[in-house]
Amino acid sequence: MTIEYDGTNFIGWQIQKKGRTVQGELQNALEKLLKKKINLIGAGRTDSGVHALEQVANFKTDNGLGVGHILRALNNLLPKDIVIKKAQEVALDFNARFKAESRVYRYRIFLGKTAILRKLVWEVFQPLDTKKMKQGLKVIKGYHDFSHFGKKNEDRHYYRCEILKTKCEVKDNEITFEIEANRFLRGMVRSIVGTLVEIGRGNLGINEFAKMLNNQSRKAVKKAPASGLYLVKVKY
Amino acid sequence: MTIEYDGTNFIGWQIQKKGRTVQGELQNALEKLLKKKINLIGAGRTDSGVHALEQVANFKTDNGLGVGHILRALNNLLPKDIVIKKAQEVALDFNARFKAESRVYRYRIFLGKTAILRKLVWEVFQPLDTKKMKQGLKVIKGYHDFSHFGKKNEDRHYYRCEILKTKCEVKDNEITFEIEANRFLRGMVRSIVGTLVEIGRGNLGINEFAKMLNNQSRKAVKKAPASGLYLVKVKY
Repeated sequence: MTIEYDGTNFIGWQIQKKGRTVQGELQNALEKLLKKKINLIGAGRTDSGVHALEQVANFKTDNGLGVGHILRALNNLLPKDIVIKKAQEVALDFNARFKAESRVYRYRIFLGKTAILRKLVWEVFQPLDTKKMKQGLKVIKGYHDFSHFGKKNEDRHYYRCEILKTKCEVKDNEITFEIEANRFLRGMVRSIVGTLVEIGRGNLGINEFAKMLNNQSRKAVKKAPASGLYLVKVKY
Repeated sequence: MTIEYDGTNFIGWQIQKKGRTVQGELQNALEKLLKKKINLIGAGRTDSGVHALEQVANFKTDNGLGVGHILRALNNLLPKDIVIKKAQEVALDFNARFKAESRVYRYRIFLGKTAILRKLVWEVFQPLDTKKMKQGLKVIKGYHDFSHFGKKNEDRHYYRCEILKTKCEVKDNEITFEIEANRFLRGMVRSIVGTLVEIGRGNLGINEFAKMLNNQSRKAVKKAPASGLYLVKVKY
């Protein structure tokens, strides 16, 4: 399934004992429809408040319902902040998480205050040097140790990610970053964007930023808020 | 003042005895700041749920505070769904409502379901013939009696409006209409758009639509929901 959601009112993708999660809502709807326990595997565990345009998740069922029927029935059962965009049958060994080859995240910054987009962007009030931010973004391309930009207590002590593509668009009052990587550490995009904004504000040089990669410098990282972050695509 | 607001959680612009209104929130903030009763005049009385990108409102004060100071102080006092974009001094006889020469409204339709934009558009599920809708939109240009598209119990029994400009853009999953007129009746844009969608669905011919103008036909009008409507600009 390809899934869009507005992360504002979720404590994240992953099901928890307490609190509203995307996975929880989806599993509830699926179990109501298929009348069986369902194990739903998502491609990316987005954090509290993070949105998704095309999250991918899979599950197994021996129920004979067609995918078109499942798609429509689920969209009727689900709350309005989750929408199934596509549903398709896949090979039995498909795994949305482990078969993913890369993920694309987008981050939207709005320069100034905005009433209408406030839950979908990060509002930044100071002027930013977007030229320097673009240069900074390019620095992260390739293989690097991002331990400085990830959560310290990760399960796996493996912090190397390959940044495959970066993009920065400046239009009207918006700056949009896109980063594609083979994998992301928890909080990594928000830490990269928060730090790029420090560059844009003139508080950090590009060389200092480059040193934060590969764990060469311990300078503190600033994390951008969740409201501007989108999981855009998962590639297989 | 030029004002942006997210209409979702307001029962409209105009202050009421009960319920949260944009005018009410603005007057509260102004009176807190200026410590005097304020009479705020808005250019357009948007309905419950309708958004504004550049609503215009004016007030009189003999307080010596500069406009820059007022702008910043108000934005600090106001809730997050209202933002003052600009503030400027105007002539004493300026009146945001009566000096307005035209207003521009935009209406956003999203084809299909959307979790992220659901509060900012109208989600339409059936396929639409956009070519016919564009033709229909052109029909309203010029002077017409819109009594069929307005609220019946209007104060003034004067239903003629001059449509100065229309625009229709189709891009990806979105259809955007823009209509500029010297004046609008209450609910007029939503009635026009709801009827254009009936044309797009094949339920209404363009000739029948044309007859609904100038009160020639009594065919029922469908009203599009408020969530897709924006007051975009007021021209003086």
